Amino acid sequence: MRHLLTLVALLAFSALASAEPLPSWTDGPTRTTITAFVEDVTTASSPSFVPPAERIAVFDNDGTLWVEQPMYTQLAFIIDRVKALAPEHPEWKQEQPFKALLEGDLKALQASGMNGVTKLLAATHANMTTTEFERIVSDWIASARHPRFDRLYTQVVYQPMLELLDYLRANGFKTFIVSGGGIDFMRAWTEPVYGIPPEQVVGSQIAMQYKVQDGMPVLMRQPEVAFIDDNAGKPVGIQRHIGRRPILAFGNSDGDYQMLEWTTAGAGKRLGLILHHDDGEREYAYDRESHVGRLSKGLDDAVSKGWTLVSMKRDWSRVFPVAPEVSPSTPGGGHE
Amino acid sequence: MRHLLTLVALLAFSALASAEPLPSWTDGPTRTTITAFVEDVTTASSPSFVPPAERIAVFDNDGTLWVEQPMYTQLAFIIDRVKALAPEHPEWKQEQPFKALLEGDLKALQASGMNGVTKLLAATHANMTTTEFERIVSDWIASARHPRFDRLYTQVVYQPMLELLDYLRANGFKTFIVSGGGIDFMRAWTEPVYGIPPEQVVGSQIAMQYKVQDGMPVLMRQPEVAFIDDNAGKPVGIQRHIGRRPILAFGNSDGDYQMLEWTTAGAGKRLGLILHHDDGEREYAYDRESHVGRLSKGLDDAVSKGWTLVSMKRDWSRVFPVAPEVSPSTPGGGHE
Repeated sequence: MRHLLTLVALLAFSALASAEPLPSWTDGPTRTTITAFVEDVTTASSPSFVPPAERIAVFDNDGTLWVEQPMYTQLAFIIDRVKALAPEHPEWKQEQPFKALLEGDLKALQASGMNGVTKLLAATHANMTTTEFERIVSDWIASARHPRFDRLYTQVVYQPMLELLDYLRANGFKTFIVSGGGIDFMRAWTEPVYGIPPEQVVGSQIAMQYKVQDGMPVLMRQPEVAFIDDNAGKPVGIQRHIGRRPILAFGNSDGDYQMLEWTTAGAGKRLGLILHHDDGEREYAYDRESHVGRLSKGLDDAVSKGWTLVSMKRDWSRVFPVAPEVSPSTPGGGHE
Repeated sequence: MRHLLTLVALLAFSALASAEPLPSWTDGPTRTTITAFVEDVTTASSPSFVPPAERIAVFDNDGTLWVEQPMYTQLAFIIDRVKALAPEHPEWKQEQPFKALLEGDLKALQASGMNGVTKLLAATHANMTTTEFERIVSDWIASARHPRFDRLYTQVVYQPMLELLDYLRANGFKTFIVSGGGIDFMRAWTEPVYGIPPEQVVGSQIAMQYKVQDGMPVLMRQPEVAFIDDNAGKPVGIQRHIGRRPILAFGNSDGDYQMLEWTTAGAGKRLGLILHHDDGEREYAYDRESHVGRLSKGLDDAVSKGWTLVSMKRDWSRVFPVAPEVSPSTPGGGHE
C-alpha cells in the first residue's frame, strides 16, 4: 500500500515541480541557493538525497512569515483585549501594568517587567478553556488591522514566504513554525493562512489543567508560563515536538540563532536562512538597534556559519500578497 | 495546487479502500463499529463528514500497540542498562535502587519509590546528548527479546493494530501515539515499526538543555522530569503537541481514561476504544487487579460513555505478526 501512495505522490510532485517556483523572488544568488538546495536533497541520485520523512523545515513566525513591526501582533492582541475587558475591571485604572497599557504609557509598561507580563498573560491568555481562547483569537484576527498597512494582520504575511512554504511542501517537505510566540495564539489561524496545521506549530506555552466541569471535560489555561520557545529554547522545542533535526531553518532575529545553529550543524546538506529587514519603503528597515526582532549576532556570524542572508529589498520582487477588493470575513483569504 | 493533490489523494484512497480492511479482526460488531465509523466520517455526503486535516487518531502504546506484560518494555530497557553500566559503578552494589535492581529484589525496588525512579532515570536516560540516547535505544531494541514469546519486542506488536493504523492512514487519518512512556525512547523505533514518525509521538519527557560543547551544539538530557503524559496529562499532551481534539482514541488502561473522555466529548461523531486483555492463552488476561495496565474505571464506564470494549480473544483472529524465519538485524522488519 505504501508503494502505491509513494508512486502517486511522486507523480503529483513532478507535475507541480515543473511550474516555475518562487515567482516573487528575484532571479539571483539567493533564489538559486534555495532551489539548488531543494533539488539536491530531493534528487534520488544525489549524494545529498534526503528521504521525504526527514525533510523537516522550520520557520520563525514574527518577522519571518509576517510583519513584526511596530510591535508583535500578539502584543496588539493583548492591548485590544485589555481595552475590551477594561469596563469589567474598573480597578485596572489604578493598577499596573493595566493603567500604563490603557493610558498608552509605554515607559511605565516596560517598567512593570516580568511581573507585568505575567499579569497581562493572566488577564488575556489564561483562566479560560482552550476552546474559549481559540474563539477569542479567531474573532480578533478576523478583523484586527495592521496600523500602517491598513490590512488584516493575516494579509501582512510575506508573499515570497507563502511561495517558499508551498514550494517546499510540493517537494515533500514538512513545514513547521518554531516561534517565540504563544503556540495556541498562532494555531487559531496558521492553517488557513500558511497551510500549516496546529500539530506543526511549535511555540511558547502556558500550563494547562484538565478537569471535568459540569460534566464536560475542559482544558483550563493556567496563568503560568510552562515553556519559552525562544533563543536556546528553540532547539529544545524542536526536539520536544518534532524529535528530528530539521534540514532547513529560516529566521530573522537573534532569537533564531540557536535554531539555525542546531539545524545547520547536522550531518549532510543543510540550509540556514536569515531574512534581513532592509526595506523601509515597502516594509521596515531594522537590525542591530531594534528592540523588536534585533539582528546582530546573526549578521556577524552568517558568513562563518554558512547561512544565507536574504535581503528583502534585493531578493523579493513583491512583499505582500495582492490585497482582496473586499476584506474577507474569515482570515486566510488574502493569499489564495 | 492543493486541489490537484487532494484529487490524487482521493483516487489513491479509493483504490486502497477497495481491499478488504482489517483481515486480522474477526467479522463481528467490533470490526463493524470501526469500519462504519471510518466510512461515516470519510463520506463527503455524510452529515458526520470530517475533513482530512481533522482526522486525528490517538493511540496509547504499552498494552495497546504492543505487549506491556510482564513489565513495561522501557523498564526492561532500564534493567538491561543498569546491568550493562554496573561494572563502571561498583558503588551500585551498596546503593538503592541499583542494589535491588541488580539483585532482582522487586520489593526493595518498589520501596525506593519516586526517589528511586529519579535515580534510575538519571543513570539510564539522562546526562547524555539526545543523539547518544537515540543510539543506545536503537541498539538495544534491535536485539532485546520478550521473555515469554522469545521474539524481539518490535515483534510483539499487535497485528490487528498495525492493520488498523494502516487502514486509518489509507482513509486520510493522521495517527499519533499518546503514551505515558518516554517520548524519545519510543521515537527511536516507532517509524519502522508502526509507520508513525517522531513528530507524531507524544509521551513523557525529561528536561533538556541546549549548549555548544567543543564547538558542536548538543541537546543534553537532564535528570529532571518535565512532563508526565499519563491520566489527566494525556489531554494536556494532546493539546500541547497536536493542538486539535482527536476524533478517535484507542487505549487499554485507566491511564487512558481521560484521553478517551476528552476525545469522545467533542462535537460530532467520535470513537473511543478500549482493548480488553482477556486472552491468557495467546497473550495475557488482566484488568482490575493488575499492577501494570490496570483497567477498572474504564470497564465500569465504557457503556455509559459509549466506548467500545475490544476483546482480544473474541475480536482478533491473530495477535502477533508472522515471525520472520530469521531475526532481522534492524527493528521493524517483522510486520511487512
